[in-house]
Parts: sequence; structure tokens; C-alpha cells
Amino acid sequence: MSDRRMSPEELEAALREIGATRYHNLHPFHRKLHGGQLSRAQVQAWALNRYYYQSRIPAKDAALLSRLPTAELRRAWRHRLEDHDGTEPGTGGIARWLKLAEGLGLDRDYVESTIGILPATRFAVDAYVAFVRERSLLEAVASSLTEMFSPGIIAERISGMLAGYDFVTRETLAYFTPRLTQAPRDADFALAYVKDEARTRETQEAALAALRFKCDVLWCQLDALYFAYVAPGMISPGAFVPDGHAPGALAHGTAA
Amino acid sequence: MSDRRMSPEELEAALREIGATRYHNLHPFHRKLHGGQLSRAQVQAWALNRYYYQSRIPAKDAALLSRLPTAELRRAWRHRLEDHDGTEPGTGGIARWLKLAEGLGLDRDYVESTIGILPATRFAVDAYVAFVRERSLLEAVASSLTEMFSPGIIAERISGMLAGYDFVTRETLAYFTPRLTQAPRDADFALAYVKDEARTRETQEAALAALRFKCDVLWCQLDALYFAYVAPGMISPGAFVPDGHAPGALAHGTAA
Repeated sequence: MSDRRMSPEELEAALREIGATRYHNLHPFHRKLHGGQLSRAQVQAWALNRYYYQSRIPAKDAALLSRLPTAELRRAWRHRLEDHDGTEPGTGGIARWLKLAEGLGLDRDYVESTIGILPATRFAVDAYVAFVRERSLLEAVASSLTEMFSPGIIAERISGMLAGYDFVTRETLAYFTPRLTQAPRDADFALAYVKDEARTRETQEAALAALRFKCDVLWCQLDALYFAYVAPGMISPGAFVPDGHAPGALAHGTAA
Repeated sequence: MSDRRMSPEELEAALREIGATRYHNLHPFHRKLHGGQLSRAQVQAWALNRYYYQSRIPAKDAALLSRLPTAELRRAWRHRLEDHDGTEPGTGGIARWLKLAEGLGLDRDYVESTIGILPATRFAVDAYVAFVRERSLLEAVASSLTEMFSPGIIAERISGMLAGYDFVTRETLAYFTPRLTQAPRDADFALAYVKDEARTRETQEAALAALRFKCDVLWCQLDALYFAYVAPGMISPGAFVPDGHAPGALAHGTAA
């Protein structure tokens, strides 16, 4: 590691390089998901587990919001809460994710209970919320920068899943459409903040490490899904077992 | 779930039933480890990742100690810190684990840095420390009760690893010998506490859930090791890659 302070442009390039090498669009689970190579049961497992991530995003954003020092910054961050929690019952990202899960044939109450998620999903997501609560504000903001890379994955996901799965409709995927405009707006704000606030090599390295950490949080969730529901197919005790599958059955290539 | 309060004996039986069905001695990774079926590289990965768990146990015990209300209880818990951190440099469980890792051919500084561990290891272990900090004292104590089940796994590990691996010596496994007496003593104390303090069905269920949570923490670490280093052999970006293995090579059955 050089000790030289990076220019804001160099810092942005280093952040983008992390996305190019460690963002979860590169994970084999996502390649299968977007390529139409998963069973309905495997897509259900993805939606069920990812719901826990979705459901904790407002906790993460509220923790960050509580640490922002000015009304201007808090106003800029506050709409993230509205995006996820909505303005009335049935609106917002979490409600749309529940519709996605229901569209895939999952029971809404079961999804909301989160009792069937993999322990690794819970540990990874909770690590993200704790990171935002406990680390420096700069690191907390930098950890959100995976949104710089999300429009690409979402566009690929919508077209890939509609083409690949007869059990997926455009309505089921309605969650993602607003994210195509929300994520870049949020990422632009956070990137400008990080480029402005990370003024020493040390804080720049901390911002890069925060983004690597967040990539690990996302990657780890897909590792766990792959392990439990693709190969070798070992489902953790107590976690979701798709209809018609005995525990361990997915390990032997019998996924529907 | 019945609403009836369990007798202390029934509660103990329910706790033991969790061990019989969810303790990590049942995990395929441990069955391979103890059966002599892993390569040296795979045993190294286990020792490297498990070091992070060992290194955080005193943080967990100090957090619990800080919440105990009486000198008597604190004295009873305090020796756990001594067991792990030792009385002088080079003594205690963490130092013995480092010797185990070195005995397997790992660099001591690399192990202590924890830079090569799997993200899932970090998330699971950190979840355990956070649980002990944040949940009720009863749940914190109950989460330690996996020690009720550890003498069996340790005895099996020592004999299995000595018989199965020519690169493992009795000296390398010196970590485990004191644990054969420490763990039952600690478990007896914690079990008596839980049986005494869990006086309603609700708190009894919370104690059972805490032990299930702890089993998940241990199980999840082995899932991640299996996924990265056994099958399919997908090593997380930045994590330990054994000597002579290109990333992903383990996925194709080329483990040394």
C-alpha cells in the first residue's frame, strides 16, 4: 500500500475496481439465477433469504441517519427509509419484496417470520447493521456504495429471470423497477460524500475496506444459498426445506 | 409448544436433545476431519478459521462477566478468561491454538492477523459476541452450554486426528487436553445457573433458543469451511488459498 493520498478520481477508480472484482454479480449463484438455471425451489430460497436483508435495510439506514450531523445530510438520507418502508401499508421496497416472494409461491407470514432463513444469512446481515452502527460515519457511508454497481445487476436480473423462468412475471419483479433510479441517486450522493470526506490515505483505505466488507456481506449470503440449495445441498438444521424435498435431498441432484 | 413450565430435569433433557440433533459433531466437515479424510490444506483452513473463534472467546466471556451481579458469580466465570488468555505470555488456550496452527505449517503472524479467514467465520463469531452482549443474562449463559457436548467431540477429535493424519502430533493437539476438564466444569456451572434461573416457560424457551442459536454459530462455520475447501470448493475473494492451489482449484478435486 502506498502512503500517498489518492486524488478523488483515483479513490473512485479504486472503489469501482472493488466492484469489478468482488461484487456479487460475479457469484455462481447469481449467474445461475439470471441464466434461468435454477429450480423454482431454489429461486424461492433466494427470495426467502434475501427478504431478511431487505427487512433490515431501514434499520441500517436509521442507524446511519441518527449519526449524520446536519439537517441537510439527514434529509438526503431520509428518503431511503421512505423507499423501503413506504408511505402507507403495502407500499415501499419491503412490501414489494413480499409480493415477489408470494409471486414465487411462498407464504407471506412464513417469509416475514424469517424463521426459515439460513443462519449465515442472519449473521451476515446483522454484521452489516452492526458495522454501520459502530464504525466511523465515513465507513458507514462507504459500505453503501455497492449501490454504484446495482443497476447493472438489476437490469440483467429482470431480463434474465423473465426469459429463464415461466414462474416469474414482470409483476413479480416489480420490486426492482424503482431501484433502477433510486440506487444511482443514492450512490451518487454517497460517492460524493466519500470522495469529499476521505482526505487522508488512512481514511481512504478505511473507505475501500468498508466497501470490501459490504461485498463480503453480499457474497457470503450467496455462498450460503449455493451450499444449502445448489451444491452440495446441505440445508442447515431448521432452515427452509422446499415442498417435496426431504432434508438433504437437494444434495443428490433431485431439486425440482 | 406447551405453556407448562418444565421441571429442571425436563429443561436439562430438552437442552441435551438440542445437542443430540444440532451440535457440530454431526456436521460432515467434522466427520471428515475426525475420520482422517481431509488434506493437510483442509485441516489448515479449519485451524486458521477456528482461531478467530478462539480469539474472541475472552471478549465474549468478559462481556458476560461485566453483566454478572455478584462477586461469587463473577469469580466463577473469571477463570474462563485465565483458561483462554493464560497467566503469562505463551500460556492459555489462544496460545495453544496458535501452536496447533503452527504445527500444521501455518505462519503464526498470518493466523493472528485473521486476514485470511472466511467472511462467514467472522460474521458467525461476531454474532455470538453480540448475542452475549445484548440478550438477557440467562440467554447469554445458556448460549455457552454447547460445552456440555464438547468432551465427546474432543476425545473423538484427538484419537481420530492422531490416527488419520501423519502431519498431526499429540503435541500439536495439546490445546484440547485441558479442555477435557475445563469444559465439563464450566458446563456444570452454567447448566446449574440456567436450571435455577429459568423459572417460567417463556424464559425456558429463551434458554433453549439461545442454545440453538449457538449451535447455528458453530454449524455455520463448518458449512463455510466445507463450501470453500471441500465441495464445491469456492473460496471467498481474499480468503486463505492453500500453498500450490490456484483459487478454485479445490473445486475440481485437486486438493493435496
